[in-house]
Amino acid sequence: MNHLAVAQTIIDCDIHNAMPNDHTLFKYLPSRWRYHYETIGPRVHWGGNYPRAVPNAARLDSWPPSGLPPGGDLDFLRSQLLDNWNIEIGILNCLYNVGGEINLDFAAALAQAINDWQISEWLEPEPRLRASLLVPYEDGELAAAEISRVGSYNRFAQILLLARTRDPLGHRRYWKMYEAAAQYELPIGIHFGGAGGGPLTGAGFPSYYIEDHGGMPQAFYAQVVSLVTSGVFEIFPTLKVVLIEGGFGWLPPLMWRLDATWLQFKDEAPLLRRLPSEYIRNHFWITTQPMEEPSQRHFFPQLLEQLAMDDRLMFATDYPHWDFDAPFRAFPVKLAQPLERKIMAENARLLYRL
Amino acid sequence: MNHLAVAQTIIDCDIHNAMPNDHTLFKYLPSRWRYHYETIGPRVHWGGNYPRAVPNAARLDSWPPSGLPPGGDLDFLRSQLLDNWNIEIGILNCLYNVGGEINLDFAAALAQAINDWQISEWLEPEPRLRASLLVPYEDGELAAAEISRVGSYNRFAQILLLARTRDPLGHRRYWKMYEAAAQYELPIGIHFGGAGGGPLTGAGFPSYYIEDHGGMPQAFYAQVVSLVTSGVFEIFPTLKVVLIEGGFGWLPPLMWRLDATWLQFKDEAPLLRRLPSEYIRNHFWITTQPMEEPSQRHFFPQLLEQLAMDDRLMFATDYPHWDFDAPFRAFPVKLAQPLERKIMAENARLLYRL
Repeated sequence: MNHLAVAQTIIDCDIHNAMPNDHTLFKYLPSRWRYHYETIGPRVHWGGNYPRAVPNAARLDSWPPSGLPPGGDLDFLRSQLLDNWNIEIGILNCLYNVGGEINLDFAAALAQAINDWQISEWLEPEPRLRASLLVPYEDGELAAAEISRVGSYNRFAQILLLARTRDPLGHRRYWKMYEAAAQYELPIGIHFGGAGGGPLTGAGFPSYYIEDHGGMPQAFYAQVVSLVTSGVFEIFPTLKVVLIEGGFGWLPPLMWRLDATWLQFKDEAPLLRRLPSEYIRNHFWITTQPMEEPSQRHFFPQLLEQLAMDDRLMFATDYPHWDFDAPFRAFPVKLAQPLERKIMAENARLLYRL
Repeated sequence: MNHLAVAQTIIDCDIHNAMPNDHTLFKYLPSRWRYHYETIGPRVHWGGNYPRAVPNAARLDSWPPSGLPPGGDLDFLRSQLLDNWNIEIGILNCLYNVGGEINLDFAAALAQAINDWQISEWLEPEPRLRASLLVPYEDGELAAAEISRVGSYNRFAQILLLARTRDPLGHRRYWKMYEAAAQYELPIGIHFGGAGGGPLTGAGFPSYYIEDHGGMPQAFYAQVVSLVTSGVFEIFPTLKVVLIEGGFGWLPPLMWRLDATWLQFKDEAPLLRRLPSEYIRNHFWITTQPMEEPSQRHFFPQLLEQLAMDDRLMFATDYPHWDFDAPFRAFPVKLAQPLERKIMAENARLLYRL
């Protein structure tokens, strides 16, 4: 056990478990879709993860001795993460690209397989874990069907989407999914990554992975703007959204800009009854890893004050990825104890009802 | 004359003059392209300006008594803007969509016509004005040719692009234009707007103009990331870039994020020898209109401190657009006199050598 972490209760909101191999997947996939997987295979719009040669963008020390891939071995994840850092509860976000699969029926079959595998091989054996429910999110009705199928299993913490979708998430094509999420009281988690077929930027496809990684807030920015502007939170007033691994330094200026724009263009979005920043502060949560690390430490408290979302920040390690945040060095400045407790555990406990 | 503005020297870095009608355009367009204009006409990727019914997104009081469109009448612009606000020098940014024209030869002909019209009908008659040089920027060589044709006329202040391009501006297709800009010592101005054919967001096409307007920093964000990452500033070390009407609240967190990402992924961008934030602070200038207006006034000095670009901010009115910034209410807090002088005039004077 790591002694630096003993004193503080920790809930880790972003842990990546991984499907170890096809053999395990096939145990949970109907034969029709096993045949599809073996003959045609996954087909997605292009995206990218770093580093390519290491599955799941993993820390080099996260390979389990069993030979399974990083995040693929529950026993090793227990000892390297949960025991070592004394983590009370951890949320699994399996990044198997279900939502990006362009054959939507295959996507639905994959979601069902991954969710059943998570129940059997992760959640039932390990009481400290919760998991995100994977859905074929590019079709609202198929996504809603999967939520109805397993959403009442109380160890699923949220629905998991990736940030780069086919259309901005306020579009009507996604509303059936929100209706089901609200019905089952499951937040919508939006995680770094994905690929909807278009470029990441408003000016075409960039050349470097630095631009993909450094530029990912553009996708989060678009999703926040779209979810708010579309009036989704008036239609589904209990809907909650978690921004995972997208940072938040970009969010205060976005709130300022969007409030000013909305005051000018209200007529265009008649569903909205409050300032965009009020919807953001009422409906969004944010995980901490990675935070923009300001060039000067005193900018960090400024950022927290501008954000004014102390009740919405939630600690995450991003285990086993290369940019893992250890609990004892997650923040550039020492936080006041009550705030640290909120961020390290209590905000997540309230949101996910842990 | 407006007495509130008398005390302070003002250089206005974003004034929009407009081509009044086809008749004037045809005086400057070769017959081959007049025929093209009359038979086929402009063809561009879709974009949008607000309000649609008013040309050039104009203030309702900016219609000249002559019947010409807002920004189309030099005498009226003189009295309503330059005289009324005691503006020493103003930079014209004509938003005629030359760069978005998808027939690039027609784009080159339009650029030539607009530039010749600006020289004859704006710059020669009015010594207080400078203008941006329009170029068919989606082809680096055609753009370089237009810069070579008129770039030595000393009343052109910069090259004008729009923020939403076909590819991010670090791409090699634009390098010949930068080479010519550096040779003629002309900054590259990147203005709000444009449409390169792709969506504004990393998640597809949004539904509302609120999203286009509130989301435009995404395009600026992408251009900053691309210009820095591509190494353009190592190849053209004297190249200067002005971000016009894009705000800057998003820039400090972008610098933090990009520095951290670059430190991790240096190998991918071997041309870079310094932190991305150093290239940004050395090569970029920013106009003030519109600024993100923070929800609390004391956030504004925080933002200026985080930005650390006091020598690079330049006042702009955006006349005659609906979101005009009057000089006496451009800032949410009273600035110290030396900083106010820099922003209102002296930074622009140095950059543009006025």
